[in-house]
Amino acid sequence: MPAQDSWQAPEAVVSHGRCPDGLVSYLKETDDFRIVVHVFPDGDAIGSALALSLGLRAMGKRATVYTKDDIPQMFGYLPSVEDFRGITLIAETDTADATLIVVDCNSPQRAGLSEVRFKKTIVIDHHVTETDFGDIRWVKPDYPATGLMVYFLLKDLGVNITTEIATNIYTALCIDTGTFRFSNTTAETLQVAADLVNAGVNPSAVANYIYNTWSEARFLLLKNVLNSVEIHNKLAMTFITEAMLRETGARSEDSDNFVNFPIMIESVSVSALFKEIGPDKWKVSLRCQGDVDVSLIAREFGGGGHRNAAGFRITGSLVSIKQRLILSFSGG
Amino acid sequence: MPAQDSWQAPEAVVSHGRCPDGLVSYLKETDDFRIVVHVFPDGDAIGSALALSLGLRAMGKRATVYTKDDIPQMFGYLPSVEDFRGITLIAETDTADATLIVVDCNSPQRAGLSEVRFKKTIVIDHHVTETDFGDIRWVKPDYPATGLMVYFLLKDLGVNITTEIATNIYTALCIDTGTFRFSNTTAETLQVAADLVNAGVNPSAVANYIYNTWSEARFLLLKNVLNSVEIHNKLAMTFITEAMLRETGARSEDSDNFVNFPIMIESVSVSALFKEIGPDKWKVSLRCQGDVDVSLIAREFGGGGHRNAAGFRITGSLVSIKQRLILSFSGG
Repeated sequence: MPAQDSWQAPEAVVSHGRCPDGLVSYLKETDDFRIVVHVFPDGDAIGSALALSLGLRAMGKRATVYTKDDIPQMFGYLPSVEDFRGITLIAETDTADATLIVVDCNSPQRAGLSEVRFKKTIVIDHHVTETDFGDIRWVKPDYPATGLMVYFLLKDLGVNITTEIATNIYTALCIDTGTFRFSNTTAETLQVAADLVNAGVNPSAVANYIYNTWSEARFLLLKNVLNSVEIHNKLAMTFITEAMLRETGARSEDSDNFVNFPIMIESVSVSALFKEIGPDKWKVSLRCQGDVDVSLIAREFGGGGHRNAAGFRITGSLVSIKQRLILSFSGG
Repeated sequence: MPAQDSWQAPEAVVSHGRCPDGLVSYLKETDDFRIVVHVFPDGDAIGSALALSLGLRAMGKRATVYTKDDIPQMFGYLPSVEDFRGITLIAETDTADATLIVVDCNSPQRAGLSEVRFKKTIVIDHHVTETDFGDIRWVKPDYPATGLMVYFLLKDLGVNITTEIATNIYTALCIDTGTFRFSNTTAETLQVAADLVNAGVNPSAVANYIYNTWSEARFLLLKNVLNSVEIHNKLAMTFITEAMLRETGARSEDSDNFVNFPIMIESVSVSALFKEIGPDKWKVSLRCQGDVDVSLIAREFGGGGHRNAAGFRITGSLVSIKQRLILSFSGG
């Protein structure tokens, strides 16, 4: 990777639009882009990368999208999703004159990209920065989704927002805001969503793809997980064993979001989902609503995370781990 | 009720805003309003009525809200919800000079209101009209929610959209569009939602009130209902027995929306929820996704409804009813 050049932090640059002038002018005058998403890409990463590549291509540029891990099947409806290539294929192309754009993450490592040389590197991300990677960095943790940043960028670039671009961005917004239910939902998010629907997005079709395309195995796994619930005052614990995965035929990633179900209960403020990852080995995901800070609980167990979403890995007997968690929670 | 007067259908009236001129000018020049919602009021009815009453009161008018049935506890957060009075109390007031406004339904019968005389009657509703009741009728089935109509009406009346009014309207929109997931979600809906957030609505707080305030009993009932699932090709059947309600302590209305859970499964196109309402008596709710028309199935069993949501009541042994339904579905 090239060393950081003298390019100034974009936040300090005067922008006529939402985006740093330096980024907009660089994209305008450059022709060859390799866009990468983070490992285990989610809808924000995938939709943002596709929208950006479609926009740059509409400007007559070369823009290809790469991923280390498979695109989840549920995103098969995204326009141009078939363009994604395996990230190892980057090394097989001539990158010396190409620009790398890292989307929805802020380092090549998070994208699963090993040493490759590029002319320039760009970061577009709404996550708190872990590194100072990137010749041009546009990092905005106050944006609910990278998709929103890409929207403003394409507008500043003068790109016409086609239905294909709009569907990708709308999906990115939906995934990262829980379709406008999470606390990161702003008036601006809803305003842009309205613009995207005007551009041709079918909001209920997108919602159906996101929320109503469970496999039967996933549904059976949810049933088993809900059956496992143990409620101790404001703490709800649920469990996924390897046997449950075998019995239902579900994959481990099918349990995505299950930790949020017990949070629906008004009297529950913390939900802990235990996932068996080996003999006496557990991955515990924590979610909360209200004033609890689950990152504090996670840290007690050697883990970490955010106020509302945290987790840890632990080895030991389930009975004793549960006891420790109940004690930790009631003491907290 | 007064007879229909010579007032013209509002749809035929030129409107400078979204709303019929006749309605706007009448509300401006009139002072005393009684606003009623339909029986078993939902969030659209409740939020619309409260927003309208707050707006009219901000204009210096008298506007009181009435309901036949209790306001569901989950709507306790709505600003001024405590203003609702029992509908029988209308008769105890002097209504001869008052105007009745029927909100989110289109007849006094649907509001549970028996014979009372008013100076004028107004209907504001987005449902297909069943009757021609109302001296002034503003009925717009193409609007996703009555709340959206009330929003445009208040704007045309020059009312400042306070946070209190906005929270009521935002809730109305969320309830009737599944927080922007249903097929009635339009760009305009999202645009208005953005305006309401700008007016002070906290979108995640509203979503939490709507979706995350389940009782533990309701959660346990869901668990039992999911356990009861039987999947036959594209048909998923679930069951709520009286014993389940007793065991979990849940109320019958706690099963609202449960029929939609099996629809999450991609391979399931019809979900049928059987609710035991007496010995060998069942109320069956049907939902579908895709091209199936469940109203046809419901009609075969003497019921009715819409293409995507229908139902019927039936007496008989569960085994034989299930068999008939499976046959009916595979034949359809």
